[in-house]
Parts: sequence; C-alpha cells; structure tokens
Amino acid sequence: MIKHLLSGADLDADTATEILDTAAEMATVAGREIKKLPALRGRTVVNLFYEDSTRTRISFEAAAKRLSADVINFSAKGSSVTKGESLKDTALTLQAMGADAVVVRHPASGAPHRLANWVDGSVVNAGDGTHEHPTQALLDAYTMRARLGRLAGLSVAVVGDVLHSRVARSNVLLLSTLGAKVTLVGPPTLIPVDIAGALAPATAVSYDLDSVLPNVDVVMMLRVQRERMNDSYFPSAREYARRYGLDGPRMRRLPEHAIVMHPGPMNRGMEITPEVADSPRSTIVEQVTNGVSVRMAVLYLLLGGNNR
Amino acid sequence: MIKHLLSGADLDADTATEILDTAAEMATVAGREIKKLPALRGRTVVNLFYEDSTRTRISFEAAAKRLSADVINFSAKGSSVTKGESLKDTALTLQAMGADAVVVRHPASGAPHRLANWVDGSVVNAGDGTHEHPTQALLDAYTMRARLGRLAGLSVAVVGDVLHSRVARSNVLLLSTLGAKVTLVGPPTLIPVDIAGALAPATAVSYDLDSVLPNVDVVMMLRVQRERMNDSYFPSAREYARRYGLDGPRMRRLPEHAIVMHPGPMNRGMEITPEVADSPRSTIVEQVTNGVSVRMAVLYLLLGGNNR
Amino acid sequence: MIKHLLSGADLDADTATEILDTAAEMATVAGREIKKLPALRGRTVVNLFYEDSTRTRISFEAAAKRLSADVINFSAKGSSVTKGESLKDTALTLQAMGADAVVVRHPASGAPHRLANWVDGSVVNAGDGTHEHPTQALLDAYTMRARLGRLAGLSVAVVGDVLHSRVARSNVLLLSTLGAKVTLVGPPTLIPVDIAGALAPATAVSYDLDSVLPNVDVVMMLRVQRERMNDSYFPSAREYARRYGLDGPRMRRLPEHAIVMHPGPMNRGMEITPEVADSPRSTIVEQVTNGVSVRMAVLYLLLGGNNR
Repeated sequence: MIKHLLSGADLDADTATEILDTAAEMATVAGREIKKLPALRGRTVVNLFYEDSTRTRISFEAAAKRLSADVINFSAKGSSVTKGESLKDTALTLQAMGADAVVVRHPASGAPHRLANWVDGSVVNAGDGTHEHPTQALLDAYTMRARLGRLAGLSVAVVGDVLHSRVARSNVLLLSTLGAKVTLVGPPTLIPVDIAGALAPATAVSYDLDSVLPNVDVVMMLRVQRERMNDSYFPSAREYARRYGLDGPRMRRLPEHAIVMHPGPMNRGMEITPEVADSPRSTIVEQVTNGVSVRMAVLYLLLGGNNR
Repeated sequence: MIKHLLSGADLDADTATEILDTAAEMATVAGREIKKLPALRGRTVVNLFYEDSTRTRISFEAAAKRLSADVINFSAKGSSVTKGESLKDTALTLQAMGADAVVVRHPASGAPHRLANWVDGSVVNAGDGTHEHPTQALLDAYTMRARLGRLAGLSVAVVGDVLHSRVARSNVLLLSTLGAKVTLVGPPTLIPVDIAGALAPATAVSYDLDSVLPNVDVVMMLRVQRERMNDSYFPSAREYARRYGLDGPRMRRLPEHAIVMHPGPMNRGMEITPEVADSPRSTIVEQVTNGVSVRMAVLYLLLGGNNR
Repeated sequence: MIKHLLSGADLDADTATEILDTAAEMATVAGREIKKLPALRGRTVVNLFYEDSTRTRISFEAAAKRLSADVINFSAKGSSVTKGESLKDTALTLQAMGADAVVVRHPASGAPHRLANWVDGSVVNAGDGTHEHPTQALLDAYTMRARLGRLAGLSVAVVGDVLHSRVARSNVLLLSTLGAKVTLVGPPTLIPVDIAGALAPATAVSYDLDSVLPNVDVVMMLRVQRERMNDSYFPSAREYARRYGLDGPRMRRLPEHAIVMHPGPMNRGMEITPEVADSPRSTIVEQVTNGVSVRMAVLYLLLGGNNR
C-alpha cells in the first residue's frame, strides 16, 4: 500500500482496486446497527484546512470517527498561520504532536506534496489549488462501479471548467488507470489544447456537449466556481448554462443506462437543472455516501492496514 | 415516541412527561463517577448551526458525547452554504454521510420543518428565527418540576419581548400542554393582541409586571436582544429596564416559594439585576445543567430508544 | 496535587517534579502501538479560547483525547460572549454543563484566576495576557531535563521581549523553583529594572547576548510579536535581529552541550535563523511533542489522579 495519497497518479490499478474493494466492505459496516470499527483507535487524524470546505472536512471527519480515530480539526484561518508560521513549521508541529495522518486542503497546488516531505505520518490530499483531489476521483470511480458494474471500457464525459478543476484532473488520471475512456467537454478557453494528452494519452476533447451525450455511460458535471465567472476566458453565465449546462432535454439524449454525476455543491440552474439533479439517473447523493466509505478505506489502508 | 422535535406543539403530555422522566434518569447518570453511557455509540449527531450559539451547541455536544455518539459540528458560516448551496442540498449531504440526527439552529423560522421533510434521520430544532426552541421549553419545564414538584396548575409569567422570542413561544405551547397557566408580560408593542390566544387559548396577557408578580409561581425573564433595541417598537433601554426589568424590590413582590428563570445569556442590568440573577430564587445555573440532561433524553429517545 | 494550574508559582518543587515524572510515563504510552489511556473516560475538558491559538488548543485537545476525555472547543469569537455575556456567566455555564476542567486562553492577565473562583472544576491557564503560561514552562523544563539530565544548577538565558512574555514569566518562576539560574537578555526597554527580582530573587539581567552565550546550558529565544514592533519601546526589526537574533555564528559561541529552545511559532529570520532552528541543538520540535505529554500529565493529575 502507498504511504500518502497525493495524486490520482499515485494509484496503480491494483492499489486503486484494493481501495475500492475495501470501501465496499466499509459500506457494509456502515449499514449495520453498530457503525463503528475499532481499527484506528488511538490514532490521530488532523484535518488541516487552509480553505473552507465543510463538505470534505465532514466527510473525512465522519470516516475517521467511524474507525474510532481521534480527529482534530485545524482551520488555518485565524491560526498561527496568520502569525506567519510556514507550512513546514506547521507540518513539523502536527507531526510532533503525534498526528498519524494529515488530511490537507490548500489553495496552493503542490502543498500536500511538500507536506509529505516533512512528516513521517501519512498525508492525504483533500484538494490543492487547481491541481488534484484524489479521494474525489476514488469516490467517483466507486460510484460508477457500483452503478454500472465495471470501470474498464466505460465512456465518461467530464463537462465544464476543466482548466481549473482538481476534480477533473484526478478523475482523468484515475479513470485512465482503471481502463475508462474520458472525454473532456467545455468551452475551448477552459480546455487547453495540451491538457488532455498531458494527463492521459487516450483522453479526448470536445466542445459540443450535445454530440457527446449519446455515446457515454457517465456524464460528470463540474461545479462552476462563481468567482471565476468574471474572468475574461469565462463565457457569460447565460451562455455557459445554454451550451454546457445539463437540463432535462439534454439528459434525455443520454443512453438509457447512463448516469449523471456531480461532486457538489451544485449551482442548480447553472451547470445542472433541478430536474436533472433530482432524477433517478443522478448519483449525487450516492457520491456523498460513497465518499465516507472511500475515505474510511483510504485512512484504514494508509494507517492501519498492510503497511504497519 | 416522535421522530423529530420541531415544536413545543409536537409534544403531547405523555411524550413530554416521558422526556422529562428520562432526563431525570440521565441526571442521575451525570452525577455518577463514570458519566458516559454507551447508548448512542456508533451514531452520528450533526450540529448544523446557521447562527452562532455556542451555549446551545455545547449543550447538545456534551449531551451527545455523554451518550457516546460521534458529534460533528457544522458551522454554516464560511461553508459551502456561502458557495450558494441550498438548505435542501446541505440536508441531503448530511443524510448521505450517515447523520442519525441533525440538530439545527437557523435564522429562518420554519427551516427545521423543511429539513425534516428531506432527511430520514431525526431533526431537532435548536432555535429557528423567532419561531421555536422546544428543548429550551423542555429544560424550563424540567427545572420548574424539579424545583416546585409539579407543572399542572403552576402560574408562570413570561416577561419581555414575546413578539420575537422563540423561547416564549415554545414555553407557552409546552406549558399549556402540561397544565400550567401562562401570563405574557411586556410592553404592548412586543405582545401582539392575538399572539396569546393563537398559541394556547388560556394564555393571559398583562402590561404591568408589578401587578402580576404576587400571583405567580414562576417568573421567566426573556433575554433582551440588543439588536432589537433600535427598532421603533422597542422602548428605550432605560424605560424597558425600569418597567420590565427584574430587580431586588420587584423580586420581593413574588410569593416566597416562587422562582426566577432566564434562558441565558443574561444582560445583567437590563432585564435582570445581578442581585436577582445570583439570588437563591434564581434557577439560571440549574437550567443550564438540566439542559444537558434534557438534550440527552431527547437524543436518546429519538435515536436509541423506543422507535428503532 | 493542586486543583488548578494558574501560575508557575503554584508549583513547588515536589509538585512540579511529580508532573514531569508523570509526563515521562505518558510519553512512554504515546510511543506504544495503542496510544490511548482510559484514565479520563467520561470526563469533559472544555477549551475556552478568547484568543486564537491553534497550536496550544490542539496540544491540549490531543492530550485530553489520549486520556479518553471528551473535548469541547469553545472559541469565544462569535459566541454569546459577543452578546455581552460576562466571563463569570460563561464560567458558571460551563460548570453547569459538567465541565471537569476548563483550559482557558484569555487576553486579560488574571482572567484564569478569576475563573477559578467561580467554578468547582479545575482551571488550567493556557496563557493570559502578558502574565503566565505555566504548561509552557513545564514542557520547557521537561525538555531541558530530557536533554541535559537535570534542572538544578542549569544556567538558562531567556532572550527577547521579556516585558510582554507570559512564557518568560512562567519559566522564570518554575526554573527558579527547580534550582536553575535564569538570565534575562534583551533590550533595556523590554526588561524593566525590577522585573527579574520581583519574579525570583536570583534572576540576572543582561543587555548583551554575545557575552551571555558562552556560559549557558540553555538559550530560550522568545517569539517577537509582530504587533509590538511598532511600539515606541521596540527597536527596529533590523536592529532587534542584529542584536538579539540567534544566528549561526552566535550559536557557535554556546558551549558544545548547550541547547536552543523556542516556544513557537517562530519568526524565522527575526529572532532565530533557519540554520539555528533546524540545527541538532534545537529542541523546538521536541518541545511540541513534550507539550502533549506534559498536558496529559497535568490533566491526569488535576482530574483523575491523587485528588479525586
């Protein structure tokens, strides 16, 4: 098993599959009357969040607590960080306090990698800048496999602001490893010409959502980040929703078995309409549930499993 | 047992009495050397707070932890809520993560009721707008019963800004159910003509605190919210304190056995003077202690008790 | 054993030594596979922080959780405190909720002492104004003893803004009790003439760091608080670093066995250079580790040990 989880590229097919299989076992536990496992009793998991992300933080917190770990939340706002402490000194401090794992969300791409150089414990990247969010990719893969029975050979469209999306990046890497074929869809300004091939050779690109939909098993809508909408390369909100938003008519172009995914939180009416978000094709709520199981599996395997 | 606790009106006399009796048992446990019960081990309680209320949040957190539940605090400030996520999507997310109970504080009256439509778990209203705060009413009833031996037939004055008080509203509903007689006391602008009858038929109204005091068993002072004092319908602070504040001379108009209550936090010198707040008649500290026992009982009965 | 830990002066030599010895046992536990002790199961520790101090809060939180206590974090920002509740009412509330210990950080010197008058539980001063920070002094003493084998007879230089340093104050008191000799070093404006003798009779003062270094076993660098640098009595940053900052050449004036300490977080380049901070003489990371053990010992002895 790997020691850190920093990137979708850290995972070969065997490791990724082991995580997904372990997550499936965790899901069984979660469904039982007593939902708590003693696996990580006495271990300390620190959630080190330099950006607000209640959703991700809670998911990791619930996962760690179900494994009986102690969880310490460290929101870098209003902390010694604002007194000018460096990431390195914060890392050394957390390690010195006995953190067995640090789950880190950071606005700077690459921060979790640097952190991993400084600590003995495991580092889990919970989102760094526009770079990666590997547990999101794992929970997405888990959800596809649970709904569609396999990952190899699936055709997956990832739609939206690919340029700035750590979710897209980690998904392309992991899905390619697991044998799915990814098509990136969005306005040309948000899909740099070289991005697809740089991430994974077989990745396709399209600027026309309607032509892609009839041929995919999965359409994954990316969240539009409102703060980006004023950027010059971003289409107007209306234009974006019209061309790349998923609404009912568009959804009906999908094959009957195809599913609709979204990492949340959604901008209902922007990249996805309520009709689609609440349809039986939508896996949005399952993704959240699976997120806890996948994060249990990751923490279990990194901290309590094969490598210790 | 009910599934949610949203309003004082959710509680019939039997259910309310069961909660108070269970709280009395919880209080016994709390007094012992080992204060922790395994009743809710493996259950997850989410404190979903859209308004700051450290006091109420801590009380629920202490209650849940004494029952061995896992507690996750979700302060909606600086969360995905600020990214525009709807209450419904937040609710579905918490449910998908396996929240067995959501304790919700929200500035909008009715928000907990809406939440209860969307989740399978239990919802506990920890204060919604100017609407209700039912666990406060339960802890107040518990305190009256503990001090005075009964609830039926008690005469209770509720004094202050009734118009905006969720504490008043929930108390009127619950006390009426349990057979106490409530008199609402305050300036006419803060006690709408139809409020008393609309909540509970037998509720009386008075604008003269001094004339009410000699005939009550309980006087419950409401907190003056400073942000309301600039409103046009609010008397000047000095005028308010003079006419509706409880000071020593006024307290001595009460029958000898009568008690003084306040939900906290107090504005000492405004609605209550230090002499009164710190007198033996005051139950203010007991109310806080009883709050933990009552919330243990509510969580226990909703989650771990008869209905699962 | 004492009931509260408010000041370095609360500790006589026997009590301090008992805490250090207990901390050494806790450190052994922390190194084992299962790091959790059941000693404080069912006890509630409240972290009541009126100032941000993630580092200290996390250290106490980790310590309490390793002893199986329930921890409730109460950040006074955005709490009922902002609604005007007094420290006394907050204290009575926490006590009424069953807090067995209150760990308090407060900007006002003396606040923890006042708190201790109002609650039955134990109060631990986690830093009050410019006054004291006794667990920091204990972890510093622990670190010196662990590195140098003894405390009696050690020569310790405390360097920097002594005037405003609660770390300096608590260290002088505790080290004097334990038989070490302290020399305060810094600009005259930051070392009032009467401070040394007032704290402990044998304390020396020097304004010349270079002349002190060859004769000490320990040099403890105080953190420069950036907000103080604009004060009229504070030298310019450049002048301060030049005269009182510890860099490589200066470090090499120390005896070979001498160690360099810093309470963190560091201003690298101001009071300490990276070369010194990261050298083998530096105990900065060990201090953090020892902080958890010492705080475990303090909570254990105050709450679960000899006195209950």
